[in-house]
Amino acid sequence: MPFIRNAWYVAAWDSEVTAEAILSRHILDEKLIFFRQPDGTVTALSGVCPHRYASLSMGRLEDGAVHCGYHGLGFDRTGACVHNPFGAPPKGMRLRSYPVVERFSAIWIWMGEPDAADPALLPDFSFNDPADYCVGQGYLLVQANWELEVENILDLSHIQFLHPTTLGSSEVANGAYEWHQDGEQIWSNRDVYGEMMRPELAGPMGVPSDRPVDRWIHTRWDAPANLAIFAGAVPAGQDRGGAPGTPTGHLFTPATQGSTHYFYSIAFPRSMGPQAEILARTQVDFLKMPFETEDLPMLEEQQRNLAGRSLRDVKLGWLPGDAAGARARNILYARIDAEAATAPSS
Amino acid sequence: MPFIRNAWYVAAWDSEVTAEAILSRHILDEKLIFFRQPDGTVTALSGVCPHRYASLSMGRLEDGAVHCGYHGLGFDRTGACVHNPFGAPPKGMRLRSYPVVERFSAIWIWMGEPDAADPALLPDFSFNDPADYCVGQGYLLVQANWELEVENILDLSHIQFLHPTTLGSSEVANGAYEWHQDGEQIWSNRDVYGEMMRPELAGPMGVPSDRPVDRWIHTRWDAPANLAIFAGAVPAGQDRGGAPGTPTGHLFTPATQGSTHYFYSIAFPRSMGPQAEILARTQVDFLKMPFETEDLPMLEEQQRNLAGRSLRDVKLGWLPGDAAGARARNILYARIDAEAATAPSS
Amino acid sequence: MPFIRNAWYVAAWDSEVTAEAILSRHILDEKLIFFRQPDGTVTALSGVCPHRYASLSMGRLEDGAVHCGYHGLGFDRTGACVHNPFGAPPKGMRLRSYPVVERFSAIWIWMGEPDAADPALLPDFSFNDPADYCVGQGYLLVQANWELEVENILDLSHIQFLHPTTLGSSEVANGAYEWHQDGEQIWSNRDVYGEMMRPELAGPMGVPSDRPVDRWIHTRWDAPANLAIFAGAVPAGQDRGGAPGTPTGHLFTPATQGSTHYFYSIAFPRSMGPQAEILARTQVDFLKMPFETEDLPMLEEQQRNLAGRSLRDVKLGWLPGDAAGARARNILYARIDAEAATAPSS
Repeated sequence: MPFIRNAWYVAAWDSEVTAEAILSRHILDEKLIFFRQPDGTVTALSGVCPHRYASLSMGRLEDGAVHCGYHGLGFDRTGACVHNPFGAPPKGMRLRSYPVVERFSAIWIWMGEPDAADPALLPDFSFNDPADYCVGQGYLLVQANWELEVENILDLSHIQFLHPTTLGSSEVANGAYEWHQDGEQIWSNRDVYGEMMRPELAGPMGVPSDRPVDRWIHTRWDAPANLAIFAGAVPAGQDRGGAPGTPTGHLFTPATQGSTHYFYSIAFPRSMGPQAEILARTQVDFLKMPFETEDLPMLEEQQRNLAGRSLRDVKLGWLPGDAAGARARNILYARIDAEAATAPSS
Repeated sequence: MPFIRNAWYVAAWDSEVTAEAILSRHILDEKLIFFRQPDGTVTALSGVCPHRYASLSMGRLEDGAVHCGYHGLGFDRTGACVHNPFGAPPKGMRLRSYPVVERFSAIWIWMGEPDAADPALLPDFSFNDPADYCVGQGYLLVQANWELEVENILDLSHIQFLHPTTLGSSEVANGAYEWHQDGEQIWSNRDVYGEMMRPELAGPMGVPSDRPVDRWIHTRWDAPANLAIFAGAVPAGQDRGGAPGTPTGHLFTPATQGSTHYFYSIAFPRSMGPQAEILARTQVDFLKMPFETEDLPMLEEQQRNLAGRSLRDVKLGWLPGDAAGARARNILYARIDAEAATAPSS
Repeated sequence: MPFIRNAWYVAAWDSEVTAEAILSRHILDEKLIFFRQPDGTVTALSGVCPHRYASLSMGRLEDGAVHCGYHGLGFDRTGACVHNPFGAPPKGMRLRSYPVVERFSAIWIWMGEPDAADPALLPDFSFNDPADYCVGQGYLLVQANWELEVENILDLSHIQFLHPTTLGSSEVANGAYEWHQDGEQIWSNRDVYGEMMRPELAGPMGVPSDRPVDRWIHTRWDAPANLAIFAGAVPAGQDRGGAPGTPTGHLFTPATQGSTHYFYSIAFPRSMGPQAEILARTQVDFLKMPFETEDLPMLEEQQRNLAGRSLRDVKLGWLPGDAAGARARNILYARIDAEAATAPSS
């Protein structure tokens, strides 16, 4: 299945990209490099030298230009060759540069038509704005197609079965499920009543673990694969009081057809005081366990069982919780088909 | 080369399948799961959930049904969905179930037309009947096509060269070789005279190691790849007295085109008393060494040298000992062609 | 890209091939075996038994014949089957034998038409003649196509960037570059003036490390991939005096399309006395570091970035130092095309 190119993807957490080291990362099956200019802005370039196919990640940075580690050619932030140890910089050799925006604690990249790279199209992850929130940042590389990740987060009914001792409980399936589309966004909302929560989960959510609670877990999807979950809990029967819940980010970027970058986060408002920092750090660590030891193996098994096919290629079963994912996939497939229809033949 | 589907294959030793854990195994390139019902009978089902391609081996067992570890769907012994945490069990989603028979200490599976799965077609491995014999059970997964395994056991002339210090001796090539077909079975018989045997081999065979002995090694093949060897020895020149010899089983089941399950066994009659149990255990351990460190590397090298081709695709040399194997392959190819001619186009 | 078959390739260093053990090595994607006869001459044979595709490297040597470890067939130095434990040696089964020449401390093999295997076509590596030189022998298996290796050695401008702390210096790019073709040979010559050399490099080259030196590094190529570098240095401004420089060999032999045997050497004349032996040993060890930890990773990254394409398939950039390599590639492609035009269809 082709990738959607005209979209914003998270390429890295802001903390991963520096002016001192070159970050190398495959995105939509292309090898890219990332680094910061002396002024702090981020540069994203194709990661292979056009001279002899050397990997530029093996080079070095100098004054905001990357110098190839093989024959010393230097390329600036626009991808133009600006340094040649053996003569004038050749005009014919240049790297492709990619539009990037640094926002919401992340570096976002646009892999499609550069002219279409409008920052206004960025999904709203303002709860990850480092000015207002302490953001715990996590990362996993998962050997599974990105579409499986979208399905996984849009249908959280699985937390009862895949995460029984961490994020789930036996009451999840008895909860209420609702989904709706709001413009291009899809919401997949699960409300669970009368759950007994483990102390590890109840504590940070501010509810007791010795009495039943009511929990809401509301998921928002922006195409292609940028998801947010807003989750909160109150003692059973108590009014929720309009609190939005703690936001977590689940930002997926295809590395290859069979592997996906998973940027996950949990954020607490700085207005909480010093505890926000501590909670961000400890809670993103808490999430790592189920994400890495429960979700990841399941998704990688699905990927192996699909044996090179995408979800679009196969017959799928249907459960009520699949409605939001199915709608998202319809939107995605329409965009893929639209891009294929207008793509220049290469 | 296509697999033969309408045949009994060993899927597992009886001891491998329990009511407590799910056994996952690839057979004829399909991912299957095996477990026991509360009544002890064995269930074999396709191992991938039709809902979202999760591996059911990551699920759990409850009352003879397997429950998917992703969204909790439960499937009974027939493969029907009988449990859905989110509503009525959907009729459209079901697993494929496979006919199995538990006999001769093994679980046999039929991968072809279920209606044709006649237990009367099981090959006779009554020497592995746990009621009468103590059966030592061994298992190896070999990265080689099953056909190479059939050739290996049907031509035991190799024991002189591949197993010189364990199963073979320098006299094997001087022995007599005879083969014949008996109905659908092929016999490949080797009689060796005047061998000096090592104590490790002579002892369990009940002959001295300090004097020459006469040994018979008679191999029986049932299609596709279920072989028995009956071997015995007497002091040189002495009458064999009609003893059939110690039976070993060599039961091969294709995992994929390039890998094969090797179930091997050695059996001693319970009528021997407590020694039967000890001999079964120690002798199956003794066999592990040559099978794992001598046969396995040779077969895996052959597989690499064939580079994706089957024996049917290549020119082979011819030695007298190849006659039985050649006849077996002709029978196998005829069955493969017959199945291909009648298979529904998929 | 097809291999050039009608050419001499180094198959092994002389010290690697003995009468006691079978050396197994892939060359031009064929599995070959090498061993010595009792008279010391080297035999090269196809490495797969024609009987059942066993690897002959798992066999044993007896009187200059290789005996298969599976069923005992023996093949002599011509590849003819000369031993069959079960009857007369079958005429139809034989191994392919390959012309080999032992010269310049190496075993050279001819993979093409045997009649064309003229030792007069061997490239001149007389500086590796063990009668006159102490030859330090090194070996690496590199996961990169052989063509990348040719380019690497024909354009040594990279030593400034890839080997800054071992073989290079910041003055390399400022040096003079000249290339020319001499018959079928190509020379790529680099002269660097006023370099400060590190003691590790200066010492063995016989120049001071505390004053500038002039260095010459002249590379000679013989098709397909046999290269020599003659390098020397004198105090800056001093006359070179006609000294040829220390010779190093860079002999590349395709193992597969994506992997190459790299035989490298450094030689010192025996006329130097006992120091020649010590220098050969220590200097070949010194070279191992940059070759293994700097060139090899770069070449393997190039190979991955080419993703199955050869340099002939892709657009390349152009720097002045590429002229010699480009000429060499033109000669190579002409030979590949010529062999393809005359090859029997197989």
